[in-house]
Amino acid sequence: MKKDANTDYDIHPLIKQRWSARAFSQEPVEMDKIHRLLEAARWAPSSMNQQPWRFIIGIDKDETHQKLFDTLVEFNQIWAKSPVLILCLGKTKMNMKDEPNEAYSYDVGQAVAYLTIQATQEDLFVHQMGGFDKGIAMELFNIPVSYMPLVILAIGHYGDSDTLPEKIKILEFSPRLRTEIEEMVFSGSFGHKADIFAKK
Amino acid sequence: MKKDANTDYDIHPLIKQRWSARAFSQEPVEMDKIHRLLEAARWAPSSMNQQPWRFIIGIDKDETHQKLFDTLVEFNQIWAKSPVLILCLGKTKMNMKDEPNEAYSYDVGQAVAYLTIQATQEDLFVHQMGGFDKGIAMELFNIPVSYMPLVILAIGHYGDSDTLPEKIKILEFSPRLRTEIEEMVFSGSFGHKADIFAKK
Repeated sequence: MKKDANTDYDIHPLIKQRWSARAFSQEPVEMDKIHRLLEAARWAPSSMNQQPWRFIIGIDKDETHQKLFDTLVEFNQIWAKSPVLILCLGKTKMNMKDEPNEAYSYDVGQAVAYLTIQATQEDLFVHQMGGFDKGIAMELFNIPVSYMPLVILAIGHYGDSDTLPEKIKILEFSPRLRTEIEEMVFSGSFGHKADIFAKK
Repeated sequence: MKKDANTDYDIHPLIKQRWSARAFSQEPVEMDKIHRLLEAARWAPSSMNQQPWRFIIGIDKDETHQKLFDTLVEFNQIWAKSPVLILCLGKTKMNMKDEPNEAYSYDVGQAVAYLTIQATQEDLFVHQMGGFDKGIAMELFNIPVSYMPLVILAIGHYGDSDTLPEKIKILEFSPRLRTEIEEMVFSGSFGHKADIFAKK
């Protein structure tokens, strides 16, 4: 299913086409695609090249997959039936010294963004979820306190939206909306619209 | 100048080719390219579609450009002479209620990641800098306390690496390094390598 972004300015097709689907197929995800998704994340930039991202991957109802699913909030369990689930963690401290890495969350966001671009290239869909029990995830996977669970990714091929419950189906078919670009780009001072969009 | 990632698995060319250059050309960046960069950021996913990213853009030594440059730490001022500088902010609160948005930094990271992909597509280079005075930036641009300065982006065409001082030139020509993928992907429990790379 396509839900291309309704853009004001032409952007790369993979960014235009990416959207956060909920109707996943049960068809397994090809292993070489999984490799490439994680490799794409690996090559994201990060502050001081700290690469604070870590991934715990569950595939096709293996034990990790089941545990990850169990941490999801009830609403997400309704639809997040993808063959791949990945918990994304951030290392909150610097690699070589005992100091906080203030950019860890930002940098994991970058890595996952690259993963989503690669996934779109592979005809896969990614839906990111903040709705899971981080404390239980810490326990289930023996996560050290210096790592922070950030999101769980549902990843898979597109399935059949007709199998979704009605309230989820509404979300699946609702248009992708964004704030106007003029509301997010300023110059001079905060809130002062940049005049670069004047001719729009 | 090319510095393609030395990947273990084949990834999208734009992710493979992107790198954080320091030798920027003084050639202005075409306005339609600037539009597309910001539009790409706009279509990033975000938690609850909060879109917490805001951008303050300075172009070609306008007043904003000069102010942004002035906030940079001395080391970055040596090389960050790009025709475009963008301060990226995160809205730390939810849009509709007075509650913290825990994903704001992660989501700004995603938006900037999309911007960097679009920039690579446009033959532009982006170098992200955490090294700037956030307090001074808050003052200079009247940034409300509910917004957090995260990074400044230097953006431009590639210039002449010979113009860089020697210590910067060393960075410019050093290879792009990443931790082994097996060190960042686990299953079962934290630190337990996922066996999906066994055949590598």
